[in-house]
Amino acid sequence: MRIAVDASGGEYAPKEIVTGAIKAAEEYKVDIILVGEKSILHVLSHRHLGKSGLTITEASQSIELGESPVKAVQRKPDSSIVVGVNLVRDGTASAFVSAGNTGAVVCAALFNLGKIDGIERPALGSILALTPTNPALLIDAGVNVDCRPRFLVQFAQLGSTYMQHLLGINSPRVGLLSNGEEETKGNRLTQESYRLLRKTNLNFIGNVEGQDILNSTADVIVTDGFTGNIVLKTIEGLGDTFLSSLRQVGHLFSCASHLQARTLLRDIRMSSWAKRMDYREHGGAYLLGINGNIVIAHGRSQARAIMNAIGLAKLTVEHGITPTIKEKSHEQTNYS
Amino acid sequence: MRIAVDASGGEYAPKEIVTGAIKAAEEYKVDIILVGEKSILHVLSHRHLGKSGLTITEASQSIELGESPVKAVQRKPDSSIVVGVNLVRDGTASAFVSAGNTGAVVCAALFNLGKIDGIERPALGSILALTPTNPALLIDAGVNVDCRPRFLVQFAQLGSTYMQHLLGINSPRVGLLSNGEEETKGNRLTQESYRLLRKTNLNFIGNVEGQDILNSTADVIVTDGFTGNIVLKTIEGLGDTFLSSLRQVGHLFSCASHLQARTLLRDIRMSSWAKRMDYREHGGAYLLGINGNIVIAHGRSQARAIMNAIGLAKLTVEHGITPTIKEKSHEQTNYS
Repeated sequence: MRIAVDASGGEYAPKEIVTGAIKAAEEYKVDIILVGEKSILHVLSHRHLGKSGLTITEASQSIELGESPVKAVQRKPDSSIVVGVNLVRDGTASAFVSAGNTGAVVCAALFNLGKIDGIERPALGSILALTPTNPALLIDAGVNVDCRPRFLVQFAQLGSTYMQHLLGINSPRVGLLSNGEEETKGNRLTQESYRLLRKTNLNFIGNVEGQDILNSTADVIVTDGFTGNIVLKTIEGLGDTFLSSLRQVGHLFSCASHLQARTLLRDIRMSSWAKRMDYREHGGAYLLGINGNIVIAHGRSQARAIMNAIGLAKLTVEHGITPTIKEKSHEQTNYS
Repeated sequence: MRIAVDASGGEYAPKEIVTGAIKAAEEYKVDIILVGEKSILHVLSHRHLGKSGLTITEASQSIELGESPVKAVQRKPDSSIVVGVNLVRDGTASAFVSAGNTGAVVCAALFNLGKIDGIERPALGSILALTPTNPALLIDAGVNVDCRPRFLVQFAQLGSTYMQHLLGINSPRVGLLSNGEEETKGNRLTQESYRLLRKTNLNFIGNVEGQDILNSTADVIVTDGFTGNIVLKTIEGLGDTFLSSLRQVGHLFSCASHLQARTLLRDIRMSSWAKRMDYREHGGAYLLGINGNIVIAHGRSQARAIMNAIGLAKLTVEHGITPTIKEKSHEQTNYS
């Protein structure tokens, strides 16, 4: 399996991206196509080129974080994002991973891969805990800031299918994020969405609240991309603060000899709920509703986050959620 | 100063409410009017009646959590919520604290106290850390689920004034909660609100994101009541999980002898950021934009949370944020 990786996208590009991609190639036994400026990528990866199927595909342009997505995609056909998406379109890669401009990745995917039947808007699905215990998918985690009720129904359908395929959950419980459990709660968007969701054949369990997000109440948590983005970033912000506090305590413990407490502390740090607050662990979000596998990693992704994002891409390809084009030979783009 | 307390509102009413009110009377040196069923309240508080200015005012009805606010307020004129609000209207109490049906408290306040000039919608302001270091006010924390841009501007004005008066912050930094820092980010509501906020004489610092909420980036974080409620409950949910983890570690530490680590752990637990995630500490939210002082406590409030909510009410009355009617004599309502 070949996975294309945007080596020019994100705050820590290209170095951390390349490091993460090399680690992923070893860890997950996948071939990696680094997409970006050949000369720089060659310097960063020449020791690994050829080994573990690592190759480079040139992309002379890059789209910056602040750029307007639509314009940037149109004006920069040789950007790492457009080139990467096209590798998926052409069947050269099974998936594309980018920590770059989210809007631009979504636009390039929309333009060049297209939407799947029956879906009007693609949406970002972010798994809040990639563990066997109680993961939940938050959808839309940030693409569609203004939504119509029927979009939310489509997000629910996409999310439900994704969780069925990816994690083998038989009938995923779908919850609608709202400001109260009762049907009468919510804003105009969620009240109407509630009525529509009840008519579907999804396992719709009604409204869920903020405190339910980490409680394993629902397998799929449906919301608009504005609210989803804010919730996700709030959780990440708290996770960062929490983990740094635990590290402080952990540091003192490492000098101490109280084995029981040290073990418990490690358990907490490694536990699913601490991990699910850490974006470095959950490895990015999957773009649902597109004819191709696209994983969008956090803009602040360093090597570990990129490695996990590639892991998520592999898992998603293996579970065949999105109709993918059969991989073609990739000889012409090899650099090594 | 007399503060009326809804003894029938919330999951733990009346026992925890009464316990919290008695503690607050001692702690904050305020007179308390318990509003609810006389017979029950007398049993629960008879040892304290008369002492510390504790009195009872009869309210034979109570509004349940699931009831429709407008109808409930209209049909139950002798409910603890309506009676409590009227004690403020009549000048018998300087403030009213309730952990009951939020919508009903807002309706009763709107109907019986009225809005202050220039404000179309009252909003809930929730202080995320009542500490001297870096508290931030989240407004609207849950009243107005569907908003117009000008409402958000009014929330910003209310929040800014509140933080100036309450905490003496000279020119509170006002941030608009959005899905990105750039002006171009946001949904239709926040994009238009951004343009309006820039024209005000507020210290508007632009958009803030989820991870900025606990970062002391802004003193006032403006959002609609739907998003605000979800964010607040997400933080509370994480706070609960976090605190219970710390308690686990703390329990082991209490048996251990490693003083340095034990001290650090206590510091973390007591630190502002841990506290600000704990609704029991921040004592509820203040209803801004109303002619009277109303504090809405968490529905799950136990004694400690109620005590803190009464403390917040006292602080707010003392800082004269809302034009209040001068307290009148309260002889006729004394029960003891």
